[in-house]
Amino acid sequence: MARESDISDYLIAPDPGALRLTRRVSGFDQTGAPVETAVVEERPLTIFLNGQEIVTAMTIGDYPDYLALGFLKNQGMLREGEEITGVEFDEELETVVVRTATETDYEEKLKKKTRTSGCAVGTVFGDIMEGLDGLTLPPMELKTSDLYALSARISRTPSLYLEAGAIHGTVLCAGARPLVYMEDVGRHNAVDKIAGWMLSEGVSAADKTLYTTGRLTSEMVIKTALMGIPALASRSGFTAWGVEIAQQVGLTLIGRLKGHRFVCLAGEERLTRDADPGAVPPEPASSGRKGATT
Amino acid sequence: MARESDISDYLIAPDPGALRLTRRVSGFDQTGAPVETAVVEERPLTIFLNGQEIVTAMTIGDYPDYLALGFLKNQGMLREGEEITGVEFDEELETVVVRTATETDYEEKLKKKTRTSGCAVGTVFGDIMEGLDGLTLPPMELKTSDLYALSARISRTPSLYLEAGAIHGTVLCAGARPLVYMEDVGRHNAVDKIAGWMLSEGVSAADKTLYTTGRLTSEMVIKTALMGIPALASRSGFTAWGVEIAQQVGLTLIGRLKGHRFVCLAGEERLTRDADPGAVPPEPASSGRKGATT
Repeated sequence: MARESDISDYLIAPDPGALRLTRRVSGFDQTGAPVETAVVEERPLTIFLNGQEIVTAMTIGDYPDYLALGFLKNQGMLREGEEITGVEFDEELETVVVRTATETDYEEKLKKKTRTSGCAVGTVFGDIMEGLDGLTLPPMELKTSDLYALSARISRTPSLYLEAGAIHGTVLCAGARPLVYMEDVGRHNAVDKIAGWMLSEGVSAADKTLYTTGRLTSEMVIKTALMGIPALASRSGFTAWGVEIAQQVGLTLIGRLKGHRFVCLAGEERLTRDADPGAVPPEPASSGRKGATT
Repeated sequence: MARESDISDYLIAPDPGALRLTRRVSGFDQTGAPVETAVVEERPLTIFLNGQEIVTAMTIGDYPDYLALGFLKNQGMLREGEEITGVEFDEELETVVVRTATETDYEEKLKKKTRTSGCAVGTVFGDIMEGLDGLTLPPMELKTSDLYALSARISRTPSLYLEAGAIHGTVLCAGARPLVYMEDVGRHNAVDKIAGWMLSEGVSAADKTLYTTGRLTSEMVIKTALMGIPALASRSGFTAWGVEIAQQVGLTLIGRLKGHRFVCLAGEERLTRDADPGAVPPEPASSGRKGATT
């Protein structure tokens, strides 16, 4: 059950009751009895940077402005200090256009490279890896008591996941306080929406922890590092390359965080072990995040 | 525990002991004690069609030939009956080149469209949706006894998931028999590897069921339908668009398949309810697929 203190602290919390985000669908259960069940929405959203079409993302559809801003920022398509002159969402056309004061390098680059490489995906990825060179993340103290508190509060927070499943969650946290909890059908969209919110609000990353329900893959680690967030925690597992990159850039990487258990595979020096793992209550089997939201 | 009968029937089963697929990584557990843990590998693989670079996929790295063939097939880039003259994998360059007897439409299309749209992702997606027009899937009888048997056998099969977590599984099944079980860090790669195997072996799709540990999103439903497989089952949940497309093309869509429970949200007419759900043993809490492989 959610407690009042679990949700009152959020700046943005999930809105599982929002009409546009889930739909009731009719079907049959294992006994053949008709059932109505809630399923999450999934819509295409095409992101433009000025006059240039960048990508079509599949998204649940909330916060298209944050998603577009965060996607472009996380892809390195918005320079540091770039002036955003407008973000225009068109619900009918399913497009969002981000306008900047000056044309950025990126658009020119994209035009040039796609002529030879055919698809931007490879190109963009190469650029992102370059962005990690020389990156150092700030020191920070991450208390294990805060980690346990975050994990428990996030699990009890009413969410689309608890309502309909099949969705990922990412939460920006400061100490034991979850600040912004985004969910999306696209694993990276939830992170991008947080990046867009941080960019819009001018929020510092240096003292934050990012919590995700998703796996700690290379892409997730790279995004977190490029956002300047020094710690990333997940209830899910790791990939080898994700661990390698976290070690290279000095990101604190915590996975398999369930009940009193976790494993730290990079950036151990930020951890202050002030909590007794033996005193952490086990996760209730029938509540919280129930299973494979994949 | 795995039983002999669970794994002896597979044509391809996971190989959790393979050296190239997992790595031992050192870290610390919640008590601060040093731990060694297995994590899955994740490598870039760039797929070429003849002289054209198509995409860079993040993959665990087994079966690069099936992955490339299946990806191109599922993206509609290989025509029906197209003669494949070669598949060349270069481990050092992390590339795989698929060669066809004639240049396909797709390469020309891609060159043309990317000049105006910047990234192939949107383009490719549009082409795929077009491919669904007029598609009808064959009739088939899907017994609930087979569904329950598959679910139990797949959960007991030794896998990279059970070894290291953070990975997705997809299994091509015929009746109660799992034939080919592919795993990958990329959610769609596992399906593409199955498509590549089917193409290479000339296997019919009409009497098959596809089982996935992942969510039933639009992309997963579209891929299954384009492969000609009439039934898709998952232990995970649905998205609204996934359900809508399944209903449109008449695909049998079964989700939240755990223990005796499931929900069928499309193609109910293929189901024969020959099993008593009350007689299905519950999933053991501590074995099988343990949690969020996201």
